[in-house]
Amino acid sequence: MRAARMYGYNQPLVLEEVKTPEIALDEVLVKVEAAGMCRTDVQLLEGYFIDSVPLAFPAIPGHEIAGSVEQIGAGAPPTANLAVGDQVVVVGGWGDGVCRQCRVGDEQICGHGKWPGFGPYGGYSEFVPVPYKYLIRIDRKYNLKAEELAPLTDAGLTPYRGIKKLRQAGVVGPDRVIAVIGVGGLGSYAVQYAKLLSSGATVVAFARSDEKLAVAKEYGADHVINTKGKSIADIRTELVRATGKGEIDAGIDCIGAEESIRMGFNLLATAGAFVSVGLVGTQINIPLFPFVAREFTYHGSFWGNYNDLSEVVALAQAGKIKHALKRIRFEDINENLELLRDGEIVGRAVVTFDAGAVAPSKKEMAA
Amino acid sequence: MRAARMYGYNQPLVLEEVKTPEIALDEVLVKVEAAGMCRTDVQLLEGYFIDSVPLAFPAIPGHEIAGSVEQIGAGAPPTANLAVGDQVVVVGGWGDGVCRQCRVGDEQICGHGKWPGFGPYGGYSEFVPVPYKYLIRIDRKYNLKAEELAPLTDAGLTPYRGIKKLRQAGVVGPDRVIAVIGVGGLGSYAVQYAKLLSSGATVVAFARSDEKLAVAKEYGADHVINTKGKSIADIRTELVRATGKGEIDAGIDCIGAEESIRMGFNLLATAGAFVSVGLVGTQINIPLFPFVAREFTYHGSFWGNYNDLSEVVALAQAGKIKHALKRIRFEDINENLELLRDGEIVGRAVVTFDAGAVAPSKKEMAA
Amino acid sequence: MRAARMYGYNQPLVLEEVKTPEIALDEVLVKVEAAGMCRTDVQLLEGYFIDSVPLAFPAIPGHEIAGSVEQIGAGAPPTANLAVGDQVVVVGGWGDGVCRQCRVGDEQICGHGKWPGFGPYGGYSEFVPVPYKYLIRIDRKYNLKAEELAPLTDAGLTPYRGIKKLRQAGVVGPDRVIAVIGVGGLGSYAVQYAKLLSSGATVVAFARSDEKLAVAKEYGADHVINTKGKSIADIRTELVRATGKGEIDAGIDCIGAEESIRMGFNLLATAGAFVSVGLVGTQINIPLFPFVAREFTYHGSFWGNYNDLSEVVALAQAGKIKHALKRIRFEDINENLELLRDGEIVGRAVVTFDAGAVAPSKKEMAA
Amino acid sequence: MRAARMYGYNQPLVLEEVKTPEIALDEVLVKVEAAGMCRTDVQLLEGYFIDSVPLAFPAIPGHEIAGSVEQIGAGAPPTANLAVGDQVVVVGGWGDGVCRQCRVGDEQICGHGKWPGFGPYGGYSEFVPVPYKYLIRIDRKYNLKAEELAPLTDAGLTPYRGIKKLRQAGVVGPDRVIAVIGVGGLGSYAVQYAKLLSSGATVVAFARSDEKLAVAKEYGADHVINTKGKSIADIRTELVRATGKGEIDAGIDCIGAEESIRMGFNLLATAGAFVSVGLVGTQINIPLFPFVAREFTYHGSFWGNYNDLSEVVALAQAGKIKHALKRIRFEDINENLELLRDGEIVGRAVVTFDAGAVAPSKKEMAA
Repeated sequence: MRAARMYGYNQPLVLEEVKTPEIALDEVLVKVEAAGMCRTDVQLLEGYFIDSVPLAFPAIPGHEIAGSVEQIGAGAPPTANLAVGDQVVVVGGWGDGVCRQCRVGDEQICGHGKWPGFGPYGGYSEFVPVPYKYLIRIDRKYNLKAEELAPLTDAGLTPYRGIKKLRQAGVVGPDRVIAVIGVGGLGSYAVQYAKLLSSGATVVAFARSDEKLAVAKEYGADHVINTKGKSIADIRTELVRATGKGEIDAGIDCIGAEESIRMGFNLLATAGAFVSVGLVGTQINIPLFPFVAREFTYHGSFWGNYNDLSEVVALAQAGKIKHALKRIRFEDINENLELLRDGEIVGRAVVTFDAGAVAPSKKEMAA
Repeated sequence: MRAARMYGYNQPLVLEEVKTPEIALDEVLVKVEAAGMCRTDVQLLEGYFIDSVPLAFPAIPGHEIAGSVEQIGAGAPPTANLAVGDQVVVVGGWGDGVCRQCRVGDEQICGHGKWPGFGPYGGYSEFVPVPYKYLIRIDRKYNLKAEELAPLTDAGLTPYRGIKKLRQAGVVGPDRVIAVIGVGGLGSYAVQYAKLLSSGATVVAFARSDEKLAVAKEYGADHVINTKGKSIADIRTELVRATGKGEIDAGIDCIGAEESIRMGFNLLATAGAFVSVGLVGTQINIPLFPFVAREFTYHGSFWGNYNDLSEVVALAQAGKIKHALKRIRFEDINENLELLRDGEIVGRAVVTFDAGAVAPSKKEMAA
Repeated sequence: MRAARMYGYNQPLVLEEVKTPEIALDEVLVKVEAAGMCRTDVQLLEGYFIDSVPLAFPAIPGHEIAGSVEQIGAGAPPTANLAVGDQVVVVGGWGDGVCRQCRVGDEQICGHGKWPGFGPYGGYSEFVPVPYKYLIRIDRKYNLKAEELAPLTDAGLTPYRGIKKLRQAGVVGPDRVIAVIGVGGLGSYAVQYAKLLSSGATVVAFARSDEKLAVAKEYGADHVINTKGKSIADIRTELVRATGKGEIDAGIDCIGAEESIRMGFNLLATAGAFVSVGLVGTQINIPLFPFVAREFTYHGSFWGNYNDLSEVVALAQAGKIKHALKRIRFEDINENLELLRDGEIVGRAVVTFDAGAVAPSKKEMAA
Repeated sequence: MRAARMYGYNQPLVLEEVKTPEIALDEVLVKVEAAGMCRTDVQLLEGYFIDSVPLAFPAIPGHEIAGSVEQIGAGAPPTANLAVGDQVVVVGGWGDGVCRQCRVGDEQICGHGKWPGFGPYGGYSEFVPVPYKYLIRIDRKYNLKAEELAPLTDAGLTPYRGIKKLRQAGVVGPDRVIAVIGVGGLGSYAVQYAKLLSSGATVVAFARSDEKLAVAKEYGADHVINTKGKSIADIRTELVRATGKGEIDAGIDCIGAEESIRMGFNLLATAGAFVSVGLVGTQINIPLFPFVAREFTYHGSFWGNYNDLSEVVALAQAGKIKHALKRIRFEDINENLELLRDGEIVGRAVVTFDAGAVAPSKKEMAA
């Protein structure tokens, strides 16, 4: 099979023909039809995870995977409900199955977990072996494209879980304001989930680029605010103008910079809740007094688990999720990793293995 | 002022001119513009509450009240944010303010509570005194009609609280099925809230009349099932045909008959949640083994509190609630109480005090 | 190995020498040191589950199992943290691993689950094969006896989960009253958990036998009420005398009779929560109006999952659980099943495989 | 009456005879028997709240108040359940009653709230007028002393609410570790609540003084760790030695310094929860990556509401709370404010109005 393999840090992937992997008893061989390109892949190549996830080379990146079932291990039980040819997406967090987190299904935060795309097999190749229990079957009748499904397994999953935490915190509802901070890969999905999960709350998107805010608006944000160069007082004034209120009841930060988090807390209403999914920066640095005296709640939220992805897939099957995609040919992976590093990609880049002959769809053009 | 007063059980109300009430320091005099007619009013007249809510006569029924501020007591603080002429709705559950329920805002279940329409003053008259803290101000810019607002304070509030309990139970979401059982006064709102609050769940309405199911469909139900004369097995077959699943994850019973509740539990999925708001019958009679072995959760839910009604009002202001209304003149109250008793009213009957000269709107005709 | 096997319904078990089971790759062979005798075992023999759990004969009953690791399958990973000789208890609910319930760890309510003691292997024999992930290791330093551990896997687990649901419902705490209804196999543990998990609530035990209430008192109940032949009014009077209040905020029914459940709801305070774990009867039959108007919450709770049992084990290791046990020799199983059927066993009967030579402990005498 | 009044910032209180306040219709005149001295009082004098709570002089500090009912306003209803001579404590957070926070009972975080001790009347005088709804009656049969009750209204309330948030977060229980960071005024209560509310979790107290840790140990901490001059690695080693685990599942910070908060998060386990009640410092400064990737939850918690204090009072009535008190005569307020400023007071200083003739109790000596 074709695979883009990593032989060391800070060097291009090697595109080569390699042996198709063999599967264990409880595994399924998945034919990769689309693999999302994530900023994390760039970080992986740059050695960001050199300590936390040591790699043996060659390794194959790619953890946002959609495809079809090529072969099923003999140990997969009938309850797995899989057949050769089925369309599937891959749940990416694979835990040890025995720790407290795994016992409640949160394998993506297992202390002994592993992930496709961080070892010998990943989405940047034509086939990947996956334990049967990490596959979610997509009904073909919904006519979903692999390139739309792949990003749902991370970019389209992470903000979903985050916003579920805000919903569970009881701070969204008809007379509430929910803020989405940052409208990049994650944020463009977050805007949609903020609308879908908030029982009628007013959704306000914050970003520093009008182009991104236009996406937010198209994807359902009730109001958008360009924060570039503005003080909190300025931003609050715009918020009041837009919503009639100077505070947000709930917020999700899809960036992870100190300033974006601090802005969120500066705008947060008493008893409000905030969730961080973005990871660009390294520190949380916010004032203590309002945090305590106004009883804020702050959640970290990481990726998503099997049930989360099942719910995202249900939304996709119901036609409720929009995508801003850029289809990439296998041959162009290295070039696009560079674009990704430089922030030159609008929407989500997705490697598709038979993309060569296909013209981009209108939706892609628009994106 | 004109008032329809009750001088005894099982006799028509007396329509008469009476003294306009004076207000206490912490009260507001509300000019009633519309008063919803509730099945509870019929029960009140029939003596159903003779023990639980003993009346001194004459009494004025009517607990679904919308109107405007006529006069404000000197003790109402600036934070009450009220001015003469403001459009308002009345929160109907007035607790003692000191018990555990009141301390968390659930005054409608206070053991020492009282309600407008169950004593000397109520909505079936032109003015009613209301403690300032039980009024919610409606911004005039939304152009909401009193007759649309009045039913929101009970018929449109009770299922809202019930469905919030299902949402909080964590059983609604994109890949779930939520059932609304009964599509009468409450159920026609329940269908809408099931859609608005369920984060993309599939809404199925169950009733025994195609006419009511047509309303459910118009108000957003994804599927409707006429249960008249059908066994559980039949109903399940229809449910599978409609949704692909033979079970519901969440259900709200707006009827309160033994059979409607039992049907709900018969269809309920493992770990599902059910809420009762309907009160037509007197007993809950369901099998124990599945309740325990499948870990069902069952909530009673009663009316709604101030915050609940604020949220419903926010939805109304956002134009997200549809109404099936019948406007009634003050002069026709007794006649319509009889129709209500006999189940002859489609949608919600609302007494309006200046309705005489106004032609019914198209929406009302359709309803 | 020795095994007590079932060759048909309503006939004694056959005590015989059979082949020790072989284990699969992911299984562990557990040497059974103690097996609790549960009323469910009697029901199994009587054909109660003939439809829901069809048996192939011969079958071995016994689902409350404590013992030691005899042999470990090659597929058990290092994270399973097991070694030959380790003391272990068996988590009894084995799900399919792929359904929604299993994905959150609630395998005991999986629709495709299986359990030891309901098929070819069970606790009424010297060895039983168990998938490694259903074993909880007990540190030997705590010096816990197998006969004390075995009942914790069901009798001592089921009420724990039930009371956790009451705690999560927010209705226990320092100024609350929590009721335990029934003080048999489950109830004698429920009393202890009511005390341990309720943050200082007053625990009241209800039963129809002074002997059982004496156990409740010894195990931590603040008050006990013998309900035999008493009306609700009588019981309420005693409740007021004991606690100063005529209502309970939370209740767990360990019986499952219509009357015990109804008594619980009759005593329940507004916004109170109730949980059923008992299964003696078949119906729930309670009044609708207070259920709705007082906003009761009612949970079914079934057995417990891995994390629940881990917590129970932690309590046992901390010496916080008392037991009322009767040690049984393997040879006497049939005789004791008859006693169990007739309600003649006080406390929990536990088969121990090396019990022959051992004199009963003082605690057992007392029980 | 005697009162210690504040005529300006950074000057001693003036002890003088002033007119006893008159009460409004809905107020109760409380005879102050004990008033706790809080660090906040020092900050008030120093002008810390000059912007957030502007004062009109003269003002009377003192917000931890216990006493008895001297006179009852005519507007207090029978449901208030108060009589002259009743022993009472004062709930200190008085909201506007109409905002969202007040509507759920959280008046202490109302944006328009006021408090006794931050205006013309406070606990540093013999009488204080209090709206009837902010009084909690103490049954005289429990024989509780005013000086033990007064600190419960803040020092003994604030950590109670904080630990309830940890309990509600689902992270305490039999196999969990809960940390109390700081064992001063709040922390010495926090240790006790950690034990009472955690369903059997292991309680570990962290402080920089062996004297304070001795109090923690006496008040129920299972383990204590002196953190003075130690690295996180050192502290973790001690934690492992004490509990067998290197992480905490839940933590409450009673200090509010950047280092104490950071230490808490450094020790926090995946999916753990942390709550801040301490306010010594001004910033939260913690690493982002583990916060997100390990899905931490962080709550601010402020003072407590009526129901919280009712629960604390219930614990006190049940004899479950220990106090470290120093009784102060009215004449010695200024002197003790200075000691408080300098950190020279061990336990809680409480002004008692008839303390002159009374010898300190043994418990006080020990403290």
